Amino acid sequence: MQLRHDEKINLLVETVRKFLRRKAYFNLQKLLSKTHAADIAKIIDVLHEEHARKSVIAAISSPKIAASVLSEIGRPQIIALVHDMEVKKACAIFQEMSQDDAADILRELPESFSSEILKLMESSRSEEVEELLQYQEDTAGGIMSPQFFALQEHLCVGESISKLQKESNQQEMVFYIYVVNDVEQLVGVISLRQLLMVPPDTLLKDIMTSDVIRVTTAEDQEVVAQLVSTYNILAVPVVDDSNKLVGIVTVDDVIDVIREEATEDFLKMATVGNADILELSSLKNFRARFPWLLASFFSGSMAFFIIRGFGSALSNIAVLSGFIPIVLGMGGNVGTQTSAVIVRGIATGKIAFHQLWKVLFKELSVGALLALSYGVILGLCAHFYASSYVHLGWIVGLSLFFVMIIASILGVFVPLIFERFHFDPALATGPFITTGIDVLSTLIFFNLTHLFFHVTS
Amino acid sequence: MQLRHDEKINLLVETVRKFLRRKAYFNLQKLLSKTHAADIAKIIDVLHEEHARKSVIAAISSPKIAASVLSEIGRPQIIALVHDMEVKKACAIFQEMSQDDAADILRELPESFSSEILKLMESSRSEEVEELLQYQEDTAGGIMSPQFFALQEHLCVGESISKLQKESNQQEMVFYIYVVNDVEQLVGVISLRQLLMVPPDTLLKDIMTSDVIRVTTAEDQEVVAQLVSTYNILAVPVVDDSNKLVGIVTVDDVIDVIREEATEDFLKMATVGNADILELSSLKNFRARFPWLLASFFSGSMAFFIIRGFGSALSNIAVLSGFIPIVLGMGGNVGTQTSAVIVRGIATGKIAFHQLWKVLFKELSVGALLALSYGVILGLCAHFYASSYVHLGWIVGLSLFFVMIIASILGVFVPLIFERFHFDPALATGPFITTGIDVLSTLIFFNLTHLFFHVTS
Repeated sequence: MQLRHDEKINLLVETVRKFLRRKAYFNLQKLLSKTHAADIAKIIDVLHEEHARKSVIAAISSPKIAASVLSEIGRPQIIALVHDMEVKKACAIFQEMSQDDAADILRELPESFSSEILKLMESSRSEEVEELLQYQEDTAGGIMSPQFFALQEHLCVGESISKLQKESNQQEMVFYIYVVNDVEQLVGVISLRQLLMVPPDTLLKDIMTSDVIRVTTAEDQEVVAQLVSTYNILAVPVVDDSNKLVGIVTVDDVIDVIREEATEDFLKMATVGNADILELSSLKNFRARFPWLLASFFSGSMAFFIIRGFGSALSNIAVLSGFIPIVLGMGGNVGTQTSAVIVRGIATGKIAFHQLWKVLFKELSVGALLALSYGVILGLCAHFYASSYVHLGWIVGLSLFFVMIIASILGVFVPLIFERFHFDPALATGPFITTGIDVLSTLIFFNLTHLFFHVTS
Repeated sequence: MQLRHDEKINLLVETVRKFLRRKAYFNLQKLLSKTHAADIAKIIDVLHEEHARKSVIAAISSPKIAASVLSEIGRPQIIALVHDMEVKKACAIFQEMSQDDAADILRELPESFSSEILKLMESSRSEEVEELLQYQEDTAGGIMSPQFFALQEHLCVGESISKLQKESNQQEMVFYIYVVNDVEQLVGVISLRQLLMVPPDTLLKDIMTSDVIRVTTAEDQEVVAQLVSTYNILAVPVVDDSNKLVGIVTVDDVIDVIREEATEDFLKMATVGNADILELSSLKNFRARFPWLLASFFSGSMAFFIIRGFGSALSNIAVLSGFIPIVLGMGGNVGTQTSAVIVRGIATGKIAFHQLWKVLFKELSVGALLALSYGVILGLCAHFYASSYVHLGWIVGLSLFFVMIIASILGVFVPLIFERFHFDPALATGPFITTGIDVLSTLIFFNLTHLFFHVTS
């Protein structure tokens, strides 16, 4: 992927580094004043030295731009940057930040520091932020903005446009005008374009769409994202339990949610948890990953004891142990393939628990075809390679066949059952499936060996 | 994740099934006429029987709604549904579809069928679609819509609003008004809200933003998605090589791109390719997955021969072979962890090739900590479990240590080098890293065994 946009950023970063080396803070300030907040955020992301980042933030003269920059950079960096700021300066920046971003960041700052900032903020604003802080981070309430544009249903279009001109300065992204009744319950929606299309004396309630897609504050952020992408809308209104309009979630926040959830699922499947290798210290990364490897350690240990239990078979046919990596490896690979399809299918809403049997049947028929072909291939190879052991081909081929079938079944069952009981299916593959497949594979392989020898000797 | 929206869909699906069983097509038609196109698409996704899907499409009386439904359902289904339609009916639907969606679908229909549809379409529309068909599917040109709202820079705001009222019926999503010069080159942008905020006699060129974020038709769709999510914009204008405005990519298409790319990376990492288990036949799924398993097969086979080569060591210490699963398993797991972090970092733009050494250093220090701790644990376990073999603890512990270190290095190097040479880094982990780690692990394990025995005997 060639980002010409990246080249622009690289150029900016080099210039910033040059100014920092020469301590040319005035030049830096001038450069930043002409740079888009999103680009400044990118520069800060690329500058890995803590003091360089702080100098850049310090060189942004307008608190409003500093606020936009902070909203765009990664969480761990913000905390570090804000934490060392003077409270007054931090407060000036938070004052300018959209309330949802402010709440997100304050949530992660030390209690004492964040409450000091809230105390210094204008009370109307700090109240709104404090209200947002009550909601869970990954719910509609946690990601919504309390800045929306709502009008009473009995207004006419002309009045609405002049209200829009007067009051909407603060709302950066106005696409829809929400219509509320006397007790502020959401009753309809009108697009900005619709307003332009009708005579000024038309009443809002006569042109509004009253079947508004909405969510409650407690709704999972993934559901909000699904709604936005299903209905191609730019914002979802958020209501409280009494249907009172309390905020909106805009499409730019939804994009962040989609990216974030995809990253999370991706890393969970690879058993990394949420480790961020460049941002977290090595020790923190170590702590995040260590427990995930325990599953692999235990399944390996169990395989060890199973193999030890069949020690006599192994010493009789030394060649057998050579097949352990291929049987376990292929089983693990099929298990990962299957569970990845299911986990992603669940995440994108294409597969649900009630389809368990249908999915299982489909996946099992694919798994059986793969198991049959690789089983035959490996069996034949083993037979011709070590023809002195009469049954070796059968043992190895059948083992691989059964292992691959069982891996397919586990790959379907584990994520769907996790989903059914409201555990995260992305967590399933890593520890559970790997462990299950390793242990079952070893058991199958050695029991088949034992069987063939028992029967034939 | 509990989708209340899903419950609504389930209810709709049940009703549709009931109507279909009773052949109550008139009721079905009535129900569908009151249902949102996105929900009809969802119903079709859930109905797996081909004939049921066709009956639903046939029961949509308005070609316009049928067009929206087709735009929202998965590619493989559309092809099946459209392919069996009468050409005239298909044409009526394509006529109503947005040109970018029409082009996307026509691209995948058999040449003869799609050219027949194009011939029957209104020539102005078919020309636009044919133009889109020239662009690569995953570029800005391939995902853009040629329906945008552009005005000449010398117009005033009052004229612009009346033009907007007259001409914008077709453009479903107008957020920005693009400003062009006499030769249709993009020179500025104005938001709909800005128009409402200034006196009607203001000239567009006096209020427009002239530093417009734009892409060329050949730009990678991932870059477009990055721009939209970085700058929080709702649409990106697409220009040709002479800076002439030719289309826009809207945020709803960007959301599809982000989801699609995340799914692709996810499935590639799990070596499934792009298999869609519910949509493709078992045989096609089998064909998609079979080659991916070959890598696992070959690495297993190579491990086999390495183990065979050290057969004597194995027969001397029977307990050794029991450690194969744990050493290979832990190595594979660390390799997957590392490469997943790198692959996702590349995809989200957080990690780039020029940071290779920095990332390697960081990842290696985490890997070394993990390797050291698990090496010591396993070494001690092995030592106390089988204390009759003097060096077993050292052999097993050191093997695991080196294997985990090497797995970390491969996990960083392979994806970044793939990226550097413009191969897809998500493809790296599956075959390349697994194979590399399996083979190197086996080599390390048995060479260390050999070394200790050679030195001590």
